Amino acid sequence: MSDKHIKVGMVGFGIVGTGVAKLLTENIETIEQKTGLKLELAAVVDLDTTTTREVNLPEGILSDDLDRILKDDSIQIGIELVGGTTVAKDIQIKMLAAGKNVVTANKALLAEHGAELYAVARENNKCIAFEASCAGGIPIVSAIRSGLVANRIGGLYGILNGTCNYILWSMTTKGLDFPTALKQAQDKGYAEADPTLDINGSDAAHKLAILTGLAFGSQVDFEDVYLEGIEGLSIDDIRTGKEMGYTLKLLAIAEKNDDDRISLRVHPSFIASESALARVDGPFNAVSIFGHAVGQTMFYGRGAGMMPTASAVVADIIEIAMGNSKNLFNGQTIKPRNESNLDDIDNLQSRFYIRLMVEDKPGGVAKYTKILGEYEISISGVLQHEGAGPDNRVPVVITTNSTVQKNMTAALEEVQQLDIISGKPVCIRIVDIPEDRD
Amino acid sequence: MSDKHIKVGMVGFGIVGTGVAKLLTENIETIEQKTGLKLELAAVVDLDTTTTREVNLPEGILSDDLDRILKDDSIQIGIELVGGTTVAKDIQIKMLAAGKNVVTANKALLAEHGAELYAVARENNKCIAFEASCAGGIPIVSAIRSGLVANRIGGLYGILNGTCNYILWSMTTKGLDFPTALKQAQDKGYAEADPTLDINGSDAAHKLAILTGLAFGSQVDFEDVYLEGIEGLSIDDIRTGKEMGYTLKLLAIAEKNDDDRISLRVHPSFIASESALARVDGPFNAVSIFGHAVGQTMFYGRGAGMMPTASAVVADIIEIAMGNSKNLFNGQTIKPRNESNLDDIDNLQSRFYIRLMVEDKPGGVAKYTKILGEYEISISGVLQHEGAGPDNRVPVVITTNSTVQKNMTAALEEVQQLDIISGKPVCIRIVDIPEDRD
Repeated sequence: MSDKHIKVGMVGFGIVGTGVAKLLTENIETIEQKTGLKLELAAVVDLDTTTTREVNLPEGILSDDLDRILKDDSIQIGIELVGGTTVAKDIQIKMLAAGKNVVTANKALLAEHGAELYAVARENNKCIAFEASCAGGIPIVSAIRSGLVANRIGGLYGILNGTCNYILWSMTTKGLDFPTALKQAQDKGYAEADPTLDINGSDAAHKLAILTGLAFGSQVDFEDVYLEGIEGLSIDDIRTGKEMGYTLKLLAIAEKNDDDRISLRVHPSFIASESALARVDGPFNAVSIFGHAVGQTMFYGRGAGMMPTASAVVADIIEIAMGNSKNLFNGQTIKPRNESNLDDIDNLQSRFYIRLMVEDKPGGVAKYTKILGEYEISISGVLQHEGAGPDNRVPVVITTNSTVQKNMTAALEEVQQLDIISGKPVCIRIVDIPEDRD
Repeated sequence: MSDKHIKVGMVGFGIVGTGVAKLLTENIETIEQKTGLKLELAAVVDLDTTTTREVNLPEGILSDDLDRILKDDSIQIGIELVGGTTVAKDIQIKMLAAGKNVVTANKALLAEHGAELYAVARENNKCIAFEASCAGGIPIVSAIRSGLVANRIGGLYGILNGTCNYILWSMTTKGLDFPTALKQAQDKGYAEADPTLDINGSDAAHKLAILTGLAFGSQVDFEDVYLEGIEGLSIDDIRTGKEMGYTLKLLAIAEKNDDDRISLRVHPSFIASESALARVDGPFNAVSIFGHAVGQTMFYGRGAGMMPTASAVVADIIEIAMGNSKNLFNGQTIKPRNESNLDDIDNLQSRFYIRLMVEDKPGGVAKYTKILGEYEISISGVLQHEGAGPDNRVPVVITTNSTVQKNMTAALEEVQQLDIISGKPVCIRIVDIPEDRD
């Protein structure tokens, strides 16, 4: 686009939309100085046109009529901030068909229907920009596509959900149990009233699917991501892990294995407490990426919230207005999804933290260690404090050396059948983030 | 540039040049998949054409003749990796005049002659890309220009010199004295045979000048950066600081003050040991940037070395080849240097760590605390271990509340005159990096 006066239309005037409107009204001079572009928020569309938001829009631009954007050819960029995978998809397609480039923060939509939407964009010779869809204000999409483009990416380890990180951090540092920590996160605005998609790991998996496609150049679907959430994690395990030098995080991981297949997973992970990701506190996000040339990198910031997310949306508007997003979008080949490139969770090699509730009687240890041995699971440490509880059961924590997931799953099923074992064993993966150090 | 086959010429075939050649020969398919571009290293120029490097160049492209690049119109991009501020400047100007866009890692040249070179680039309708000049493989230039472009930047706090960080980290974690730590850094390849420009802070100041211009949109010169290096820092102070909860880092700082003036400085800094920058180990670099919308961000990675720096050089080649660098370069206004925008170090408000060697006799404390009081310096802590050394001198460590630099400077000059004080007081600033937390 050669015209430096760029008109923008926005659909969705909620929290992030309000932030975008603030930047596009209150910060327009800074942006012009940095970019030479005069951005104009020309239309805002939302079903709710009456609620007062924290920003003063220019007179007459707010309506509930999508055509105010679609039929105005002077609007070159459409921002979709509606969320969800139905109406939002329809809106993006209409905007592309009407000749507008699209900016979105909609991770669920791109993770589930990205390939289809990108195809629509290409048919219309437009692009979709989505920096805000992953890790909020952290320019991680841009880092993968541009800053680290010369690298073959070996692995990506992310704290991609601020709600989960806030809850686990509260449990770890304040000793809260899960329900109390969740309640506090809700009170602080870091968790939704219905937190399901955050705490079950889906939100992180959506972001991981998007970033993996970019990092490895092949499409993966949301369903390809192995998923465990943080519901039901116990403060006892967090405390015991801490004693052993580990911090519990919900990690989103995409790794290339030795045979070049991608392991893709979101699950609670014990990581070394002195590692950089272990120190990501509160609602912050961070992504550590390993490139064959650059080594380890890490990108840290606020992964959600009105202004951090708006920061990323406006960055995308500017990149589109300059023509840069289009260049990137056109240049990158993301190969179609190929299941044979994906590794199954059963094949995962990992260390494990296991907690068993064991009846305190002679010969008990031999029973479950025998089973572990039969599955070639080698024990690296055992922690059993003296004395049993009133029910004569004691928690026994075992850490293992690297072993294959399917053996661990099968072994724990057998262990659970033992008469000396109560309840379901707790099993948390210990993730050794590769070291790139002196 | 519409042609997807892009020819590149490189001047300077040293360590970084070898890394660039490796990426441009061994990793060319990955790059094509990610970008759609076919990059070709078409000419390499160096005075030394005989030494064997760690890469196999295509037959016949290595020469000592700069005209092989300048006179070949099919070469669209020139890489300057000569270093220094004389020959390199001449080469960049010749490449721009010959119609080539320029990629460089030369921080000293840009910090000292950037405005002049940018003007030459504009006259020739070309651009200069310099991601590799700051923080090696970390895409920090791109983050400031693009990812965080919607923000008004409030401050930038960087560990920008890997040599200094390695030395201070060795002193802190291994208890080495400065000469031993320097020697180890040299043995590891993290410090040059002549480490002056690293350890006196100049290298970090060069990078800070470049990043400040981008972050605040106004040109600053290298000479505008207040500079203190790490030479002569004592392991005693590092240990004492550690006891008090501080870690010593060489920080490069650009802050906007309340009156919108920029404070620009590189000096040893005690920072809270639990802060993210305190945990940047070994030769790594990190930059924490605060934006009004995004809040705190941090970017971490290897700030030097063959492949990390080459990663940034090749990222720039690609951005130029796509046309994106030109768009950014043309869009951004960096206002000419304006001294009245810069704050003097004398006006700095800071907390301080002071160590005095005091003769252990009655009334001593009253003498130096009286002087500090006269300069309105309020003491926040004192540490004096029992018992004097054989010379009857004891180290007294004082930490202060926030006070103005000029008072501190004047007070220490007076304190030093006291008959009970031996030697020059040690004075290290305690830097409170703003908190953006829950």
